[in-house]
Amino acid sequence: MTLTTEANALESLTGLIHADLEAVERLLQARSASPTAMIPDIATHLIGAGGKRLRPMITLASAGLFGPIPTAAHSLAAAVEFIHSATLLHDDVVDDSDLRRGRTAARRIWGNAASILVGDYLFAGAFTLMVETGSLSVLDILSRASCVIAEGEVMQLAAKASGELSHADYLSIVEAKTAALFEASARAGAVIAGATSTQATRAGAYGHHLGMAFQLVDDALDYAGEQARIGKAVGDDFREGKLTLPVILARARGDGTDRAFWDRVLAPDADRGAEALAEALARIEATGARTDTLREARGYADAAKAALTALPAGPIRRCLEDIADFVVARLA
Amino acid sequence: MTLTTEANALESLTGLIHADLEAVERLLQARSASPTAMIPDIATHLIGAGGKRLRPMITLASAGLFGPIPTAAHSLAAAVEFIHSATLLHDDVVDDSDLRRGRTAARRIWGNAASILVGDYLFAGAFTLMVETGSLSVLDILSRASCVIAEGEVMQLAAKASGELSHADYLSIVEAKTAALFEASARAGAVIAGATSTQATRAGAYGHHLGMAFQLVDDALDYAGEQARIGKAVGDDFREGKLTLPVILARARGDGTDRAFWDRVLAPDADRGAEALAEALARIEATGARTDTLREARGYADAAKAALTALPAGPIRRCLEDIADFVVARLA
Repeated sequence: MTLTTEANALESLTGLIHADLEAVERLLQARSASPTAMIPDIATHLIGAGGKRLRPMITLASAGLFGPIPTAAHSLAAAVEFIHSATLLHDDVVDDSDLRRGRTAARRIWGNAASILVGDYLFAGAFTLMVETGSLSVLDILSRASCVIAEGEVMQLAAKASGELSHADYLSIVEAKTAALFEASARAGAVIAGATSTQATRAGAYGHHLGMAFQLVDDALDYAGEQARIGKAVGDDFREGKLTLPVILARARGDGTDRAFWDRVLAPDADRGAEALAEALARIEATGARTDTLREARGYADAAKAALTALPAGPIRRCLEDIADFVVARLA
Repeated sequence: MTLTTEANALESLTGLIHADLEAVERLLQARSASPTAMIPDIATHLIGAGGKRLRPMITLASAGLFGPIPTAAHSLAAAVEFIHSATLLHDDVVDDSDLRRGRTAARRIWGNAASILVGDYLFAGAFTLMVETGSLSVLDILSRASCVIAEGEVMQLAAKASGELSHADYLSIVEAKTAALFEASARAGAVIAGATSTQATRAGAYGHHLGMAFQLVDDALDYAGEQARIGKAVGDDFREGKLTLPVILARARGDGTDRAFWDRVLAPDADRGAEALAEALARIEATGARTDTLREARGYADAAKAALTALPAGPIRRCLEDIADFVVARLA
């Protein structure tokens, strides 16, 4: 398993925790092993494809704010990545996705059934890793976050079925399906390193805001024409009929013609081919919906950095600040 | 949520823990609540359809062997039922099943995506319930069991794809996908009640053997023509092309004509309609495959009872013995 080019950019920011990140990689590989070949095959296909390892990085750095990173933080960071990997496997089935991290999605190679079950395996594996930290607090934080994530996914499914989603409800979904795991990753990292309750809450706030920024940028990227950098096809969200902020803003701001367009292309069985995508991109640019999505993301990244100010200063805190900048700089 | 007639039969055996079972029902209902309507809708559809509550019953009774049942055992028992419920939701998607507990499967009403995600929600909820017990040992036992269950499901999937499964490999799959949760339910119940390590191992052995008996009976029931009693259509396993022990034995014992029949009807896209089912039933009866599956189940039920002998005698132990008899008596 090697890190991708994009992750290498992050890695240069996080040289401080490089040895810890490698320990986490070894854990991810070791815990993907099973005599049942489909488990390591699918896990390696997904986890070995790279990914930025943002969440484990945040867990480790959050722990590192309070002193030397304890070994238990490695298990915790691997657990966080396993939870994330499980949700990716299930999401791809839920969304009928064909691509993930620039590779064919596991479900297109091994089938939906295998993706569901290996997702379950990784999710269970995450909890065995957390048990090994010996910290009930960590298990509390991440089991609750896992409930919230699933709840957010169900909310998103219901919104997609209804074809309606307000800006506020969109943010609630992002809070649940994305920010909750970033928040838990940061908070649990602080807790495992012996942070006070106030410090853990601050670290959690950092993670929360970072997660919001991350998802908004991701949603803007889908309409930005830079496929190679994010490892998913541009227009994926559009083709799947997802109601993300660029679409919500473009529809809300548009005139009657705009709204008619969006209503038509967001209908369940609508044609969302190349021609429709081109028109969607044009309308999103014309209404400033993409740039305003990014502006909102920058606001969250700033809030993330602000949450750090009450936490111990030093190179690790600067590293967390860099991550917040990196997340929004993906679209610079 | 009410218990079914079948569960009432069990309940008469377990009057001793009736109040505890009711506390568990309340927890199941309370923890299925969510403002995201699809979650309580699906959870209530599945969990409210009854089911025997065998696993939570075993958890409670196992705890009760060692003194008054602690409140933490209620959370643990609810967690065990949530894990079981999550696997049912995912199994029905994996197997394309239409029926569950005599009702339309959730996936046929709310769709596969919702069933996957609500399964994830219940699985995460199981871990929050376990955190509330305050016992890392319990979390250790059930997170490991959850890995084994998912591994067993993947093994089953691989076996189905290959069309080949030996008697021994079939038993390995049953150990993983069914017996592991029964074993963990019993072992964790003992642990939460303060049992010694040896006692917990004994209780686990009881659960393991009971789970083996339970699954073998379930597999035999699919070829027994008593649809109303098990809440699934007779021949469901056959229609899904599942390699269960009755089929494995019938194929192994048959002559060339038998093997040709099984090879033909177990092929991925074979016609497994009413005519094929009737012939399958006849060949299973003729080779004694169903009765021998039951004989094997009775052996496991006896082993389950034998595992109890070193545990504290009394009304609760008799109740666990009764459950072992009940499991095989379903086909009497």
